[in-house]
Amino acid sequence: MSEQRFEAAMRRALELAANGPARGINPRVGCVLLSPAGDVLAEGWHRGAGTPHAEVDALTKLPDGATRGATAVVTLEPCNHTGRTGPCSEALIAAGITHVVFAVADPGERSRGGAERLRAAGVEVTPGVLEDEVEGFLADWLFAVRHDRPFTTLKWASSLDGRTAAADGTSRWITGPAARERVHEQRAAHDAILVGTGTLLADDPSLTARTADGRLREQQPVPVVLGVREVPEGAAVRRHPQPLIELKTRELAAGLHELQQRGIRSLYVEAGPTLASALVTAGLVDEFEIYLAPTLIGGPRTALADLGVGSIDEQRRLELGSVERLGDDLLITARPLGPHSASPSRLAAEAE
Amino acid sequence: MSEQRFEAAMRRALELAANGPARGINPRVGCVLLSPAGDVLAEGWHRGAGTPHAEVDALTKLPDGATRGATAVVTLEPCNHTGRTGPCSEALIAAGITHVVFAVADPGERSRGGAERLRAAGVEVTPGVLEDEVEGFLADWLFAVRHDRPFTTLKWASSLDGRTAAADGTSRWITGPAARERVHEQRAAHDAILVGTGTLLADDPSLTARTADGRLREQQPVPVVLGVREVPEGAAVRRHPQPLIELKTRELAAGLHELQQRGIRSLYVEAGPTLASALVTAGLVDEFEIYLAPTLIGGPRTALADLGVGSIDEQRRLELGSVERLGDDLLITARPLGPHSASPSRLAAEAE
Ligand SMILES: NC(=O)c1ccc[n+]([C@@H]2O[C@H](COP(=O)([O-])OP(=O)(O)OC[C@H]3O[C@@H](n4cnc5c(N)ncnc54)[C@H](OP(=O)(O)O)[C@@H]3O)[C@@H](O)[C@H]2O)c1
Ligand SMILES: NC(=O)c1ccc[n+]([C@@H]2O[C@H](COP(=O)([O-])OP(=O)(O)OC[C@H]3O[C@@H](n4cnc5c(N)ncnc54)[C@H](OP(=O)(O)O)[C@@H]3O)[C@@H](O)[C@H]2O)c1
Repeated sequence: MSEQRFEAAMRRALELAANGPARGINPRVGCVLLSPAGDVLAEGWHRGAGTPHAEVDALTKLPDGATRGATAVVTLEPCNHTGRTGPCSEALIAAGITHVVFAVADPGERSRGGAERLRAAGVEVTPGVLEDEVEGFLADWLFAVRHDRPFTTLKWASSLDGRTAAADGTSRWITGPAARERVHEQRAAHDAILVGTGTLLADDPSLTARTADGRLREQQPVPVVLGVREVPEGAAVRRHPQPLIELKTRELAAGLHELQQRGIRSLYVEAGPTLASALVTAGLVDEFEIYLAPTLIGGPRTALADLGVGSIDEQRRLELGSVERLGDDLLITARPLGPHSASPSRLAAEAE
Repeated sequence: MSEQRFEAAMRRALELAANGPARGINPRVGCVLLSPAGDVLAEGWHRGAGTPHAEVDALTKLPDGATRGATAVVTLEPCNHTGRTGPCSEALIAAGITHVVFAVADPGERSRGGAERLRAAGVEVTPGVLEDEVEGFLADWLFAVRHDRPFTTLKWASSLDGRTAAADGTSRWITGPAARERVHEQRAAHDAILVGTGTLLADDPSLTARTADGRLREQQPVPVVLGVREVPEGAAVRRHPQPLIELKTRELAAGLHELQQRGIRSLYVEAGPTLASALVTAGLVDEFEIYLAPTLIGGPRTALADLGVGSIDEQRRLELGSVERLGDDLLITARPLGPHSASPSRLAAEAE
């Protein structure tokens, strides 16, 4: 069969994958089964944790024996792991599939190894077909699995001199309506939203994504509070449409890992200076989203506190991303300089 | 004579004015004398303090009597003040000029009133011809006379979180070469450069305008140090090509007024947080020039200190000007919201 035929089937598998849920612990995967002549025998996709994987979804659409000698084209390397469902590698072998074509290798610590298992059983394996497209499509899931944590965006809104509030803590309003609306769009675009107990106790925020006229948006981020102090019974965040996640720890990496384990791929941080600075210092921020209002405030309420930068050669250099005017305000994005820089651009590519 | 004829003569007078020196206590002024038929009889311009004013420069090019019945077209209202030279109003009257056309009224407290004096002597007076063009041309001088101080630009260079140095005071380098070169261009473009004694004693800055390879630029700002402490004998600023102005005071308005009295129309402030914050709090900054580097520093060294903003409704709102990428950095300009906002745009128009 020609390479073009595999690419065409992979494109279709990617379309099928997009039918799956965009959030959650499992990736969106699509699968097309081809006859030896190259005709489509069956299609399948994954509908989320606990439901059949894409390969099994396709296989079970055909009667026993009809899959013998077929080629499976699947967006992600078939898993080799028994979870709530059995390993796809075994299911493909049992069905008599003789060739498996996939785009992206499975990075999961427990699920990887499907290709090896298939080859050991004498199945031909062709990896890397349409790899870049599928990498882009799976960017947030791949990032979370590869880094053991969600892709983490730290947002703050400050004056041009870097203050987020006046001396008495009041901050309504520093930025204008366009910037505030963008923040709510961004809340809706992320799987979860994080604050520290400091912000929770000081502001009692609702952590919902709302429209300009105050209605709830359709997509709501999961509210997450980090810190050992209790979230009060009557806290607004307990009335959030998504159930609250309380991470009663100060271990940042462990806390973020738990979020990844709960299926959270992208995290929007709106914490105060304490937690924000701790995340920056620990190198756990992948993108900065800084809203700058044309105003000066001075005084003690800086967006970031101490970052342990004793001397200038310890400063934390970033790479500037976009600079955008939002009403009277500016939105500046930036990313840490270094090994992470590839992943965010893939995320951006997917968003386009 | 037609209005067009006056406008043409005024345009010529403006060209002549531009021959004068762009810095100093006196404005650049040009004058054209027209015969009753509208022919050019003589031209003149002012060459700086202590030399004849433009009107007198033109008048003295003609023999006695040749000026009788002529029209004087002059960019600025003729002065009514005896300084190092006599009042132009009297010179015009004595020369038998019967019509004076000018663009902009003289705002000087002692020099104004020429038009009235001329009218009282029976001379026809037409003000406001090409007023906007000449306003733009004289913007810096007019600003300084009208506000009793130079047009004051506060510059700082900081990280995205508003820090100008690491905890130990080191700050080389936060911004990159393109931003640093722009700062030197801006030093050259201003009449004077101001620091407080705090910066002087901490950094021993040279306050010169240099090229990228370290040579002195042709235009040098006058170095000014504000504060009651002594500038040490061996300070680098004492080797500046322009003689140092020490303003041994903390009275900001008085200090800036003295600079205006010394012919300084535009001031570039590169002070530390103490003096910068005092100028902002006193409402004495007309333009902000903020270089933002894509880096995070945290800690105690903020660009601005306290601005007396207790509650958010006391924040100092600005109007965003331009946003420009300079290498990896951003240059953001902004102006105070309020009565001053017209003048800087005139300055900008002149600069184009
Ligand atoms: N204008 C804005 O954009 C904006 C946004 C957010 C907040 N704020 C303001 O910020 C203020 C709250 O500041 P904040 O700094 O206290 O809030 P925060 O950073 O949200 O919360 C700080 C708390 O997080 C917990 N925490 C968990 N892990 C931590 C770690 N590794 N290191 C340090 N702390 C950790 C600690 O609480 P435990 O002791 O419970 O562990 C800590 O006290 C409020 O006044 C709020 O209005 C302003
Ligand atoms: N990275 C940068 O862009 C940058 C730029 C400039 C400075 N800096 C740093 O800033 C530090 C110096 O900070 P600084 O704040 O002391 O310097 P500063 O603001 O330049 O000077 C402060 C001094 O100005 C005098 N002053 C005059 N009028 C005043 C008034 N109305 N109110 C208050 N003070 C008045 C006072 O000295 P008297 O007691 O003598 O009157 C005061 O101590 C240095 O470490 C320097 O490196 C950094």
